Amino acid sequence: MSKRAYNFCAGPAALPEAVLKQAQADLLDWQGRGLSVMEMSHRGDDFTAISSKAEQDLRDLLVIPADYKVLFLQGGASLQFAQIALNLLPESGKADYIDTGIWSRKAIEQAQNYGAVNVAASAKKYDYLAIPGQNEWQLSKDAAYVHYTPNETIGGLEYNWIPETGDVPLVADASSNLLSRPLDVSRFGLIYAGAQKNIGPSGLVVVIVQEELLGRARSSCPKLLDYKVEADNGSMYNTPATFSWYLSGLVFQWLKDQGGLPAIERINRQKQELLYGFIDSSDMYMNPIAVNDRSWMNVPFRLADERLDKTFLSGAEERGLLYLQGHRSVGGMRASIYNAVSLEAVQALVAYMTEFEKEHG
Amino acid sequence: MSKRAYNFCAGPAALPEAVLKQAQADLLDWQGRGLSVMEMSHRGDDFTAISSKAEQDLRDLLVIPADYKVLFLQGGASLQFAQIALNLLPESGKADYIDTGIWSRKAIEQAQNYGAVNVAASAKKYDYLAIPGQNEWQLSKDAAYVHYTPNETIGGLEYNWIPETGDVPLVADASSNLLSRPLDVSRFGLIYAGAQKNIGPSGLVVVIVQEELLGRARSSCPKLLDYKVEADNGSMYNTPATFSWYLSGLVFQWLKDQGGLPAIERINRQKQELLYGFIDSSDMYMNPIAVNDRSWMNVPFRLADERLDKTFLSGAEERGLLYLQGHRSVGGMRASIYNAVSLEAVQALVAYMTEFEKEHG
Repeated sequence: MSKRAYNFCAGPAALPEAVLKQAQADLLDWQGRGLSVMEMSHRGDDFTAISSKAEQDLRDLLVIPADYKVLFLQGGASLQFAQIALNLLPESGKADYIDTGIWSRKAIEQAQNYGAVNVAASAKKYDYLAIPGQNEWQLSKDAAYVHYTPNETIGGLEYNWIPETGDVPLVADASSNLLSRPLDVSRFGLIYAGAQKNIGPSGLVVVIVQEELLGRARSSCPKLLDYKVEADNGSMYNTPATFSWYLSGLVFQWLKDQGGLPAIERINRQKQELLYGFIDSSDMYMNPIAVNDRSWMNVPFRLADERLDKTFLSGAEERGLLYLQGHRSVGGMRASIYNAVSLEAVQALVAYMTEFEKEHG
Repeated sequence: MSKRAYNFCAGPAALPEAVLKQAQADLLDWQGRGLSVMEMSHRGDDFTAISSKAEQDLRDLLVIPADYKVLFLQGGASLQFAQIALNLLPESGKADYIDTGIWSRKAIEQAQNYGAVNVAASAKKYDYLAIPGQNEWQLSKDAAYVHYTPNETIGGLEYNWIPETGDVPLVADASSNLLSRPLDVSRFGLIYAGAQKNIGPSGLVVVIVQEELLGRARSSCPKLLDYKVEADNGSMYNTPATFSWYLSGLVFQWLKDQGGLPAIERINRQKQELLYGFIDSSDMYMNPIAVNDRSWMNVPFRLADERLDKTFLSGAEERGLLYLQGHRSVGGMRASIYNAVSLEAVQALVAYMTEFEKEHG
């Protein structure tokens, strides 16, 4: 077998090697049962043990209060953009949205199909290089909820604070930063996250929702998209994505084995300090985001001379540093350094960037 | 490693051992790239090669005409129940549905939320033990489409004919019998199938749709559920279930290696003849379905004395014959004998049933 690459993909992203090894060992024969987790009934005792443990471990990691439901659904965060509105936005109601980049705007665009959307603040005035402080937000008095994007995967912006919305439920697309550090779940009405960053394989989306928000879906909401239907059926109104759920459970167990979210936060802090510190000290690389609003998970950067981009990327690939090309909508480079990307991987990246600067700077 | 069990689960169901072994070998390092398929960008060259090959192999197996799109989506067949209506049923229009059992009725119930549904025929008059012939159907003149369920996974009924609907598009929930034998796709407007029977792991649904049916979604349809949006984006409007897609591709390759659908049909014919033949010849076991309408994939059966059910099931488990309990809504037994369940597995089941009858008959 070849060496494992250093994978900086924005998603589907790197998974912990220990998780993949466990999945590999289990693949034809889970715990001596003579079959794969993929081949089990989702209603049998074996899978119920797997799915329940995954949920409990996630609850433990995030200290999720008892009055929140945890759902393991399909369709990714992009289906949630519509699903949130179908469940929480009354047909004659209004919702507040904060625009900090491409993912916020996708959420806004889909919500507008279902009711009135007030864009209460936009990072546009800062060219999407900084997050507007809450003192700049124009929240509605009667909003059904406030939606924001704690981490913008493409732009590389991340809130280091939680908005204060009083009695109005706060809804967060935490796809690319959930589980990267501790989070006070009790401040939120609903948190959702596509799995393919810090949770597991793509095709799964985790929704953490306060019970009191269930049962509000409009009549045109497809039954399978009604949070109450899924909550009442333990995310098994129909067959769930069982193998992805199991893999997520392995990731949750791995996180516990690392020491939980406080331990992961320490490593993630080191990783981003190393990478941003190097970029800021260099004459060749540049990250334009306001220092306080920089993402710990997605680090976009540019070369001083973009004619060197291709050379940089091909040299990186030769060294097993994969997926450093920036999102097609913005260009440049991006290193996604999720939980499963080790400090060693970031060190290898910085070593390569240093070497490249010496050669081409 | 323990011996692989004989797995008769209705879904998630058995997968070919060769497919699982390939997935196991690839799990940490696909083709020397140093990463798992789960960790690849869905937009990169490697995954594009995987996903395109999977689609082409499926097209080859089913001889899908060029004017049909093949989509790899999420949410299972149960989300399709709503998605079909949101795409194909005009708000003031009507659709014809045929009721042959629990899955038909779930489709009907969800479609009724979006418009007028005419139940053009129901197997209720036959206590769901036989399928009404087309001469008994009361089709509407102006239906947007006709929906039916070629195989009822729970009831164990299967059409051995394709309905004739003239210019009205025929829509089929083929979740539990697609790929079990050749099928004339050109007779259909849309065919959908949850993957967890004959295709791959749960969390994936395959939709084969005639191009002329695209672009009809109503405005309230979530963007991600609009077939045209998915078709225009190669099923990648958002991140698809990449690992499930890859596994499905391995299953399609395996089917080709077996000799394609004509070869699979021969084995499936043998398997069902063996099992039904044994049941009909026995005094202890009984299958009540009209002989011409019996499912090749899902064989429900009852013991003459239901007090023996538990003894039968525990003896089966001891011999590695798993998941023979009937669906919770109907009781009794059910053996699902999808493509990946070998003739040898059915022989082992019949051997056990014979032995059990000798001991308890």
